[in-house]
Amino acid sequence: MRVDELGEFPLIARLTQGRTMPADVAIDIGDDTSVLNVPASAQLIATCDAQVEGQHFLLTVATPEDVGAKSLAVNLSDVAAMGAVPRWALVSLLIPPSLEVSVLDGIYAGMRELAARWDVGLVGGNVSSTTGPLTIDVTLLGVCPRGRAITRAGGHPGDTVVVAGTLGAAAAGLLALVTEPGVVCPEDAITRARLALVRPMPLVAEGQALAATGVVTAMLDVSDGLTADLAHLCERSGVGAELDADAIPVDPAALAIARAYGRDPLDFALAGGEDYALVCAVRPDGVERVLASVRALGTPAHAVGHLIEIPAGETALRLRARDGHVRPLAPRGWDHLRRDGGGNGHGDDTDAQDARAVAPDH
Amino acid sequence: MRVDELGEFPLIARLTQGRTMPADVAIDIGDDTSVLNVPASAQLIATCDAQVEGQHFLLTVATPEDVGAKSLAVNLSDVAAMGAVPRWALVSLLIPPSLEVSVLDGIYAGMRELAARWDVGLVGGNVSSTTGPLTIDVTLLGVCPRGRAITRAGGHPGDTVVVAGTLGAAAAGLLALVTEPGVVCPEDAITRARLALVRPMPLVAEGQALAATGVVTAMLDVSDGLTADLAHLCERSGVGAELDADAIPVDPAALAIARAYGRDPLDFALAGGEDYALVCAVRPDGVERVLASVRALGTPAHAVGHLIEIPAGETALRLRARDGHVRPLAPRGWDHLRRDGGGNGHGDDTDAQDARAVAPDH
Repeated sequence: MRVDELGEFPLIARLTQGRTMPADVAIDIGDDTSVLNVPASAQLIATCDAQVEGQHFLLTVATPEDVGAKSLAVNLSDVAAMGAVPRWALVSLLIPPSLEVSVLDGIYAGMRELAARWDVGLVGGNVSSTTGPLTIDVTLLGVCPRGRAITRAGGHPGDTVVVAGTLGAAAAGLLALVTEPGVVCPEDAITRARLALVRPMPLVAEGQALAATGVVTAMLDVSDGLTADLAHLCERSGVGAELDADAIPVDPAALAIARAYGRDPLDFALAGGEDYALVCAVRPDGVERVLASVRALGTPAHAVGHLIEIPAGETALRLRARDGHVRPLAPRGWDHLRRDGGGNGHGDDTDAQDARAVAPDH
Repeated sequence: MRVDELGEFPLIARLTQGRTMPADVAIDIGDDTSVLNVPASAQLIATCDAQVEGQHFLLTVATPEDVGAKSLAVNLSDVAAMGAVPRWALVSLLIPPSLEVSVLDGIYAGMRELAARWDVGLVGGNVSSTTGPLTIDVTLLGVCPRGRAITRAGGHPGDTVVVAGTLGAAAAGLLALVTEPGVVCPEDAITRARLALVRPMPLVAEGQALAATGVVTAMLDVSDGLTADLAHLCERSGVGAELDADAIPVDPAALAIARAYGRDPLDFALAGGEDYALVCAVRPDGVERVLASVRALGTPAHAVGHLIEIPAGETALRLRARDGHVRPLAPRGWDHLRRDGGGNGHGDDTDAQDARAVAPDH
């Protein structure tokens, strides 16, 4: 059945039926607004991110369940990067009227599953028709003990740079999925890389554990690629960074696919994007504690370099190779709005399944 | 300059430069999320609503400033309908890359102006490109003293139905704007009706004043048309309603345009939609206080009928004509997603500049 055969209110009833709500939701769907109980000792965390068909996902590559889960996951990752607790989501759908209702059923199933995982209430939203592509625009709200959110701005020269999670799998997965068959590549690497691309797992517990150590000075999530995102942290903190090439945690799937395609796996890890790993700056005396806090959750954690002093107003990233040679690292990111994709490091909303990861210089 | 010539980060910098933030914003744009201070005694209010070009606005009819202001106004109206205080907005833009940046400048100018009027911080957002129409998706957050939000569900039989504001002007404005010239109509009526359509003024102070009286049992805003919206209130409250035709506050511009076009002005008022008036149920002993609280703000307020007992599970609206004759009133609304527009009262997101207001039976 098509959406325009079902109609708006039956659709809303169908998508929201049988929903369960966390105890801190006073009023959810069905009134003019939702009403939510924020703990008195908490600050409110708010972020939003949209997934646009053809820009961020393709229903030929991802299932509707994948798309729904990812539309929440990209926001969960942002809340995780503050060390905060996700609580409530508002879901705004822009729907081509000819869309099959079953696609929305699947999107909601994927979203519900991930929401339940973190006890996040889908407390409100909006449906509008559009002549454009299907779009899922999610606003995610969370809470954080007052003054405890970890921003991008607190890094100091000498802090150790730590990555929680691995890098490069999503970009490798995109390369493997969009290029012609014929390249022989281990099936398990393809499967793992595909999952990283279409069904990323935000490091929510890891973000909270990192914040709880008390020694993380700055943090953000890797959506654009390590160098582009680390450049944001550096810019906000007024520092530079030097990374050890050998220490970068390249995902095993990215290693296997890079080998099969004759590519440098480090490129996937440094500039691929969509990893949803967490990058943080850590006081030098707390590195072991930080690594242990993440590993205790079954997630890899690696010290990959350190923050350095730079002249005021500058941003500088450097990469130290195994042979000790240090070269400048251009913060390569994707500009979502430029025709040429930019590549000047000015990409922030670039969790896109687009050409950047397969372009030779990305 | 086109958006794809400027690029994402320069665009964000341009749209957010010189912004001022309310004191309760700890962190705004530039980190992974915003961080906001909710008063310990308050509940959080959250709502979202999108404005889609071609569905909700036409840049041939409205200026970019109008569109920006309205994208915030429709959300402010929902917060007003809870009797709450709007505080923070997140703005998600879906942008065709060929769009002129000046259009977004105008949209932000309109949004900033209305936000400043209510000390609302534009604290976050997202930009994505789209192959579809320009879309402004706003999530608005607010606060309300704990347990004081006015829902749709508290109405009782015997409560008086009060309308704050006037009805029908937006629908009349749409009729006048989309039909051929040739109908002679007073210029001031056209101007007033056009403004109601493209630049609605949400009744934020009125909603707060109504809640403060302590005698308003249920409330919502009129976006679909009085009957469709009142039907929502009745359904949630488990009551019916009887309206006095003579008491409905038809906007003077709607009266003048209806006269010029040979239409029944009551049709505009009952089913036109996009009025952003407030409708509430009031304890019978508090009606005078409620009317006075709204009129003190320079806004019309009228008792238009009362809630009635109905068999459980039914929804019933009735209209009492001047001659005393009572007829059933079908809750006519617009279904945003159906090809035929529905007309079964199942419209909620129907603040659309579409055909409904000019269709003979709407």
